[in-house]
Amino acid sequence: MVEECNSPVPGQMMRRPLLISSLLRHADRYFGQREIVSRNEDGSIHRYTWRDCHTRTRRMANALSALGIRMGERVATLAWNGYRHLELYYAVSGSGAVLHTLNPRLHPEQLAWIINDADDKLVFFERSFLPLIAAIAPLCPSVQAFIMLGSRADLPAHASMMTYEELIGAHGGDYTWPVFEEDAASSLCYTSGTTGHPKGVLYSHRSTILHSYSSVMPDAMNISARDCVMPVVPMFHVNAWGLPYTCALAGAKLVLPGCALDGRSLYQLFEEEGVTFSAGVPTIWMGLLDHVRANGLRFSTFKRTMIGGAACPPAMSDAFRDDYGIDVVHAFGMTELSPLATTCTLQAQHMSMTKAEKRRVLQAQGHVLYGVDMKVIDDDGAELPWDGESSGHLMMRGQWVMDSYFKQPPGGALRDGWFPTGDVAVIDADGYMRITDRSKDVIKSGGEWIGSIELENIAMTHEAVRLAACIGVSHPKWDERPLLVVVRKQGAVLDRDTLLGFYEGKIARWWTPDDVVFVDALPIGPTGKVLKNRIREQFRDHRLPTVRA
Amino acid sequence: MVEECNSPVPGQMMRRPLLISSLLRHADRYFGQREIVSRNEDGSIHRYTWRDCHTRTRRMANALSALGIRMGERVATLAWNGYRHLELYYAVSGSGAVLHTLNPRLHPEQLAWIINDADDKLVFFERSFLPLIAAIAPLCPSVQAFIMLGSRADLPAHASMMTYEELIGAHGGDYTWPVFEEDAASSLCYTSGTTGHPKGVLYSHRSTILHSYSSVMPDAMNISARDCVMPVVPMFHVNAWGLPYTCALAGAKLVLPGCALDGRSLYQLFEEEGVTFSAGVPTIWMGLLDHVRANGLRFSTFKRTMIGGAACPPAMSDAFRDDYGIDVVHAFGMTELSPLATTCTLQAQHMSMTKAEKRRVLQAQGHVLYGVDMKVIDDDGAELPWDGESSGHLMMRGQWVMDSYFKQPPGGALRDGWFPTGDVAVIDADGYMRITDRSKDVIKSGGEWIGSIELENIAMTHEAVRLAACIGVSHPKWDERPLLVVVRKQGAVLDRDTLLGFYEGKIARWWTPDDVVFVDALPIGPTGKVLKNRIREQFRDHRLPTVRA
Ligand SMILES: Nc1ncnc2c1ncn2[C@@H]1O[C@H](COP(=O)(O)O)[C@@H](O)[C@H]1O
Repeated sequence: MVEECNSPVPGQMMRRPLLISSLLRHADRYFGQREIVSRNEDGSIHRYTWRDCHTRTRRMANALSALGIRMGERVATLAWNGYRHLELYYAVSGSGAVLHTLNPRLHPEQLAWIINDADDKLVFFERSFLPLIAAIAPLCPSVQAFIMLGSRADLPAHASMMTYEELIGAHGGDYTWPVFEEDAASSLCYTSGTTGHPKGVLYSHRSTILHSYSSVMPDAMNISARDCVMPVVPMFHVNAWGLPYTCALAGAKLVLPGCALDGRSLYQLFEEEGVTFSAGVPTIWMGLLDHVRANGLRFSTFKRTMIGGAACPPAMSDAFRDDYGIDVVHAFGMTELSPLATTCTLQAQHMSMTKAEKRRVLQAQGHVLYGVDMKVIDDDGAELPWDGESSGHLMMRGQWVMDSYFKQPPGGALRDGWFPTGDVAVIDADGYMRITDRSKDVIKSGGEWIGSIELENIAMTHEAVRLAACIGVSHPKWDERPLLVVVRKQGAVLDRDTLLGFYEGKIARWWTPDDVVFVDALPIGPTGKVLKNRIREQFRDHRLPTVRA
Repeated sequence: MVEECNSPVPGQMMRRPLLISSLLRHADRYFGQREIVSRNEDGSIHRYTWRDCHTRTRRMANALSALGIRMGERVATLAWNGYRHLELYYAVSGSGAVLHTLNPRLHPEQLAWIINDADDKLVFFERSFLPLIAAIAPLCPSVQAFIMLGSRADLPAHASMMTYEELIGAHGGDYTWPVFEEDAASSLCYTSGTTGHPKGVLYSHRSTILHSYSSVMPDAMNISARDCVMPVVPMFHVNAWGLPYTCALAGAKLVLPGCALDGRSLYQLFEEEGVTFSAGVPTIWMGLLDHVRANGLRFSTFKRTMIGGAACPPAMSDAFRDDYGIDVVHAFGMTELSPLATTCTLQAQHMSMTKAEKRRVLQAQGHVLYGVDMKVIDDDGAELPWDGESSGHLMMRGQWVMDSYFKQPPGGALRDGWFPTGDVAVIDADGYMRITDRSKDVIKSGGEWIGSIELENIAMTHEAVRLAACIGVSHPKWDERPLLVVVRKQGAVLDRDTLLGFYEGKIARWWTPDDVVFVDALPIGPTGKVLKNRIREQFRDHRLPTVRA
């Protein structure tokens, strides 16, 4: 039975593939009564349970197979965070097809390009996207059907499309989830690169399950069956950071806020549904904080939030922690990383620190979760020391790190087996990583790097600043010098020199921006992040006052 | 690139085998300074870090290969919880060999039988086991070397054995962990069945890693990098419930208490090392509670404990919670389940309950962790309802559930793909499982089952009772009737009728034991559990007063 040669002997444990369908089966069987609450496009609330979700998902799986969808084929969604979108997450991936989540904030031509690149067979969409679909459909001949997420009654008179509820109604819930290799593709998400066409990241069932296991850990999202979780991050943005999966794994109640992401609507859901944990990008939280501040409101159940997708300004985490008693977990991730790679929580060695010291630790992007590995390297590929000072290119590898973009050959995106994130970071002796910049956002002044994120963060601690972006502007002597572009808070008064004076003593003098420009708004991209490349274009010819004529 | 046939398309994520060596590499790289503290056999304290552990482990891996140990071969340990044992955990499994942990509390002949059955090539042992090894060695011709966990100076003058420290000293730390299939066997643990020979359970790298991921979850052990963990459960008992692995995964400090498991020694470590979490069987905690009570002591850092391996008497969890403010997580597991299958924590629906109601919920063995699945069936194999009342045979399956015993053919231990635990349980509507008995301990009275565990638990809430075991004794009319065997607390006064009267109103009248016998001690098995089969033998001919002559 047991061979004595120099190769491993197999263990004698059960061996079942790690499949996404098992998450929903688990949620149904063990947390069948736990609720899923969704806000519909019309503002009404839909409420059912993980068990109901499983029943309808199996009906949809039957519908997909009746529509001729085969394993590996792509099925797209153009949808908000809601229960039908959740059902498609499980119905499509669970049946062996690939869920392709489209970002509705992209331009129609870009959407059509992506749909064609992915070769999507079906596109499920929200009612409000009917005009968008009308624009896209002629450009996407390979799509077999555009299906509206609603019932026939919701469809305008002239429209002849299929509807989601008719499909659900036409198929029974008798369906057995197929068992296949865990390396099978489960979902596809395009990253909106700043140059060239968007590129697809093709997740597998295995990478999704391992990412989910690691996400619920106490030092990550810390999700239990006592939690009520609201993913504010959209389900079309890296699978809402995996929350549709992790909540099923942990047995949490799920609150899906639909398209109403303004402060008032979110606050209402937080309070009415008893949300304990939420996750999203900084720009969304700004709206929420503005709303609660303006109305003198408090949170009664909200305890922890994960903020990531862009650097969380310290002023924001301070506001959450100090003013509202909400724990902030700063996290770093990207589409190519499923997305969660690092989270920032305290460790044993920090427990005796002062509040200010802890605060400083918690501003980093944090430590890796077991399953991924990181390093920083210099331009020649040599690994840099973990001294909290040596900044270099951040490289990642691990169980839920992309190997190659969709349609690229294996390993196509890697360098010596590591994925280059395109971020610049330092790592300290405790293994805490701090992003100092995007590689392309770094400001090179006199051969040295200036971290634009730190300059922005400092500006945003000023009481009159709402939003700040720092870019490099060309300078004849120093090559580049920092320019700060600022949106003031409503009614606030602030001038250039006051703001520049504000930097004194906070950074090396030569890091101080050379100029400040006040604007009414900053361009925000489809995933809620400030678009620095747009700002750079806009101020390409800005003449710094430090340049002598 | 992407095929359009009806088979899944592979995802494009990195794919690396789940190997135990990656846990130690992670702990070194990201938690290198975190401590591992061990109490040696002589009572002295050894202290080093995860980084030091990794260095010495690689030296030992080189030593193993120099000793000719090949992949898949078994290397045995006869050792307490200590740093050298920990190094062997990683050196043996990490290099592709199989770590076989022997239980030193077994009889020498049984140990020899197991060593021969496993075909162990090396046996590493603690100094105090020298006499035991002298008895075993002649019976185990295939063992190539018995190696003492110590240095030459620790060896008696006449002994000519190899020592661990000489091996470490003779080999460098330059070693690259081999990469092999994750299904490879990693460790072997024999269960001391009550009948027949012990049987081996052969874990794999994959099952160990998945078990570790699930163990750190908030609703399981809830371990973070802020924790200091003391496994009181021995490393020879189902890998100390996986803690040597999970602590590396989570970056926790590890405290290994050696052989001194008495209340005083444990208490000292709890306080001096700042232990926050610990895990063990009920009998061990009894000694600790006795010690702190007798000396009026308090715990200053101890916050949570996991109790399992045998039913945790409610009186014990009450004492921990109410008297010492320590959270108790009741857990169910077995060697064949790696061992963790269910843990008992509260869920959202319990949060509004009264303290007494919560207490009742927390007495169950709990809910499954994602990755395993359970059901209860009747004698004919039909699944029973989850009504909290229908008791049946508990069946398990999942990622870290055994498929077949060592040397058995695949699936050899299963019934329709499920592993029969040999336990009798009920499951309630919320998916909480409650063990009512071992199949073989169940008392059959008039065709109905009486749960011996509940009768024991009630007895143990009586202030004069230290330990109680309930067995079935034959009865001409009812087939079997319960007999209670009781150890009184030191100096306590209690008679038969008082104790039987204590049951009134607490259970159905016909469940009340027919008789009580007071004894000085109960037989405890090698894993710290009360040996009911021995008690049954002892009282086989006990004449119940309810039997009319
Ligand atoms: N929490 C628990 N309550 C009751 N019995 C338990 C519990 N945990 C483990 N056991 C028993 O211990 C057996 C496993 O023994 P072992 O394989 O030696 O760990 C199980 O089959 C149960 O009978």
